[in-house]
Amino acid sequence: MGKFLTSREENYSVWYNEIVLKAGMAENSAVRGCMIIKPYGYALWEKMQRVLDDMFKETGHENAYFPIFIPKSFFSKEASHVEGFAKECAVITHYRLKNDENGQGVVVDPEAKLEEELIVRPTSETIIWDSYRNWIQSYRDLPVLMNQWANVVRWEMRTRLFLRTAEFLWQEGHTAHATKEEAIAEAEQMLNVYSTFAEQYLAIPVLKGVKSPNERFAGAEETYCIEALMQDGKALQAGTSHFLGQNFAKAFDVQYLTRENKLEYVWATSWGVSTRLIGALIMTHSDDNGLVLPPKLAPIQVVIVPIYKNNEEFSKVDEYIQPVINGLKKLGISVKYDSSDNNKPGWKFAEYELRGVPVRLAVGPRDVDNKRIEIARRDTLEKTSVEIEGVEQYIFDLLNEIQNSLFNKALRHREANTYTVDSWDEFKAVIEKGGFILAHWDGTAETEQKIKDETKATIRLIPIDGTQEQGRCVFSGKPSNQRVVFARAY
Amino acid sequence: MGKFLTSREENYSVWYNEIVLKAGMAENSAVRGCMIIKPYGYALWEKMQRVLDDMFKETGHENAYFPIFIPKSFFSKEASHVEGFAKECAVITHYRLKNDENGQGVVVDPEAKLEEELIVRPTSETIIWDSYRNWIQSYRDLPVLMNQWANVVRWEMRTRLFLRTAEFLWQEGHTAHATKEEAIAEAEQMLNVYSTFAEQYLAIPVLKGVKSPNERFAGAEETYCIEALMQDGKALQAGTSHFLGQNFAKAFDVQYLTRENKLEYVWATSWGVSTRLIGALIMTHSDDNGLVLPPKLAPIQVVIVPIYKNNEEFSKVDEYIQPVINGLKKLGISVKYDSSDNNKPGWKFAEYELRGVPVRLAVGPRDVDNKRIEIARRDTLEKTSVEIEGVEQYIFDLLNEIQNSLFNKALRHREANTYTVDSWDEFKAVIEKGGFILAHWDGTAETEQKIKDETKATIRLIPIDGTQEQGRCVFSGKPSNQRVVFARAY
Repeated sequence: MGKFLTSREENYSVWYNEIVLKAGMAENSAVRGCMIIKPYGYALWEKMQRVLDDMFKETGHENAYFPIFIPKSFFSKEASHVEGFAKECAVITHYRLKNDENGQGVVVDPEAKLEEELIVRPTSETIIWDSYRNWIQSYRDLPVLMNQWANVVRWEMRTRLFLRTAEFLWQEGHTAHATKEEAIAEAEQMLNVYSTFAEQYLAIPVLKGVKSPNERFAGAEETYCIEALMQDGKALQAGTSHFLGQNFAKAFDVQYLTRENKLEYVWATSWGVSTRLIGALIMTHSDDNGLVLPPKLAPIQVVIVPIYKNNEEFSKVDEYIQPVINGLKKLGISVKYDSSDNNKPGWKFAEYELRGVPVRLAVGPRDVDNKRIEIARRDTLEKTSVEIEGVEQYIFDLLNEIQNSLFNKALRHREANTYTVDSWDEFKAVIEKGGFILAHWDGTAETEQKIKDETKATIRLIPIDGTQEQGRCVFSGKPSNQRVVFARAY
Repeated sequence: MGKFLTSREENYSVWYNEIVLKAGMAENSAVRGCMIIKPYGYALWEKMQRVLDDMFKETGHENAYFPIFIPKSFFSKEASHVEGFAKECAVITHYRLKNDENGQGVVVDPEAKLEEELIVRPTSETIIWDSYRNWIQSYRDLPVLMNQWANVVRWEMRTRLFLRTAEFLWQEGHTAHATKEEAIAEAEQMLNVYSTFAEQYLAIPVLKGVKSPNERFAGAEETYCIEALMQDGKALQAGTSHFLGQNFAKAFDVQYLTRENKLEYVWATSWGVSTRLIGALIMTHSDDNGLVLPPKLAPIQVVIVPIYKNNEEFSKVDEYIQPVINGLKKLGISVKYDSSDNNKPGWKFAEYELRGVPVRLAVGPRDVDNKRIEIARRDTLEKTSVEIEGVEQYIFDLLNEIQNSLFNKALRHREANTYTVDSWDEFKAVIEKGGFILAHWDGTAETEQKIKDETKATIRLIPIDGTQEQGRCVFSGKPSNQRVVFARAY
């Protein structure tokens, strides 16, 4: 086994990249840093979108669509926002090509220069708040609860498929509220939506908390986040929800008339998750044989491979398996019946293992005679032979069991790799092993930076409602009231 | 009535724009030519997407996602393609902004200039066929049946909400086949998918045919299209499907090994529909009171307005109507119960009329006493009082009736505005009235251009399987075998 892939132990980073490519999830394109999401990867994203979109709508949000281009001047309006995004953006300067006079293809037409350059959105707060100025006049217009599914571009220098790409797909919620309390409640609600999605669908256990001021979103007053631990002991930020205060309302002059007829600035949130979650999913569950997908999101939940030597045997097997296929479909299970003659069963087994299909059924003439069927679990690689009678319900239950089992395994991994650390020497030793470190911090950006410089570890989050505990900063020895979570991160 | 809107007769173009704005479908943004699709408009687009996506998947297609940027050099590889798109594209030249030295916001960093400029995709044939070169080696890899939901940008000079915008949303199918016949069959199949969607969901009758060489997609050997007639007598192209021959395969060197072990170029199609369909929908069915939406795509199918003077009356009405709401939802009907106190019933009636909700229910204390309910149809503006018993099924049937009725009304309009014309004088007279003209054409680009110059009419399509009929070109008098369809178009 594992013959297709570099093992995790050998080289985790190469293993990850090989899985993405060989399982047909994504590949690099001719455009630096931009990936192509292939059908199998996109089918997974579609399933994720469907679940998230339903959750957003259940919490009262509507979808809309705003322009991909943002006038350059909009970026200057919110000071920290421009600092955060101006250094990594694609800039449109012209709107036409023309034939090269020397016959060398096409060149930019210098006469078609834009008066003001346009930026390809790295995030849409500015263009959206410019519109909200017209949408919001009175308390009656609030709250505005909007979400957008879109592509965004950030000119990353070092890219990795799904984890960090110049263009990526995401959703970005942008809400407007009459009060600070309501906006904070919204930001917290969406953090909870994300953590529910991560744990119940991706089967990834996450920690919830807020970012240190250093790590906040550019323009936010508070950034809430969920953080997951990958198999190699590095952390991955899996979703963020921002309380933006009145920063964008002030930058774009969005005021509303209160019930008392007073003019006040509107309060804002924004929140997003992206195709990066696919990277998190792969790195949490997969193994040296390939992808392992949680059943709730797997594009194919069950694959069936018939085993036969001739047409007669095929007919026998085929007739036997058809009612099972129908039964599984009736239970809402997505089934692929691979009866193609192009490849042998052994090749198919390896292929669907690589692609992470949660359950594989194999059935040959002898199974027909014995009224049995062979079931293989992708997560544990266990094979069992079970009675054909009632196998549909057995598989339905098995899919749920695999879903739970994946979550529990990931949770045990996180628990086994979470360390409470009280001295700087221990901190430096533990961080080399990887994992989450719970340690006291004196609350200063200076200490945070020094820890990062020395160990590459960052504060992943400050736990919400974390236990209050007197202690001393692991680096400076100054007093602290609460442990925070450190890790090296993707 | 009609007090909110300019009437169609007064000014069709202003009427259209006012509906789009006042019904909350879309609005212009701060970026020239780029629209904001507002929640109500986007909800309609989501419904359209869901239906189309299911139809694509039923015909064997998978979704994927390719980069938004295309290297400039790719455009030069297919000669007619670059001619068609180079003159209207957004060009990325830099990847960074920096703070202005004079403190005037941010400016483009001249040191962050791209070696090769990138184009924001106006369509994705080039970037996709560059990838297909790696995906396709053997006949076993074919066909590739792919679709992408995406935003694209064409730098249009004159824009109109939904109908023609710099950025728009669409889907683009890109398929690769082993044989010419199979590719043509695919292009024709997708044209049929589009016409089914237009007629059965949008309730827009369409003509099917192929474009004249002049009007073909840049890079296509044949462009199939569906054309609809708007209320003002202008035609609107509602979807296209292209047989691309081996043009892109040759430009990007995509060859495959046949079963006979010979290297051959791959055959291609592409096909797409866009948010433009929303414009077609509005212009086909709406009236001077606002939007009229076909029930199958309406975000809200039924609105219920309770009528009451005090809390006691409200309780009585509310209790009476709740089982109806539940009953409608059980039938899969999307219901909005507007019991808000902010606005009076009359205001609500006008508002939902403006928004095109197909069926409105009004219920007051007297209806409760009489066990009845008032039903208003948006399409005919007819009101009837019916028994509450069994009203859910009545409404279910009514929605179907409205769907059919809208289609039939549009069909009658098209039939009443389709003219068979045999002389040039008649042609010039009829074209002023608007409508489709069936006339003979000599088959030359020269005549086509002259007709356009004199009348602004273009050949909308050459009917597929059209009746063969000897005749003489309406302009040149030269012989012709078949009538083609002329119109002025959006």
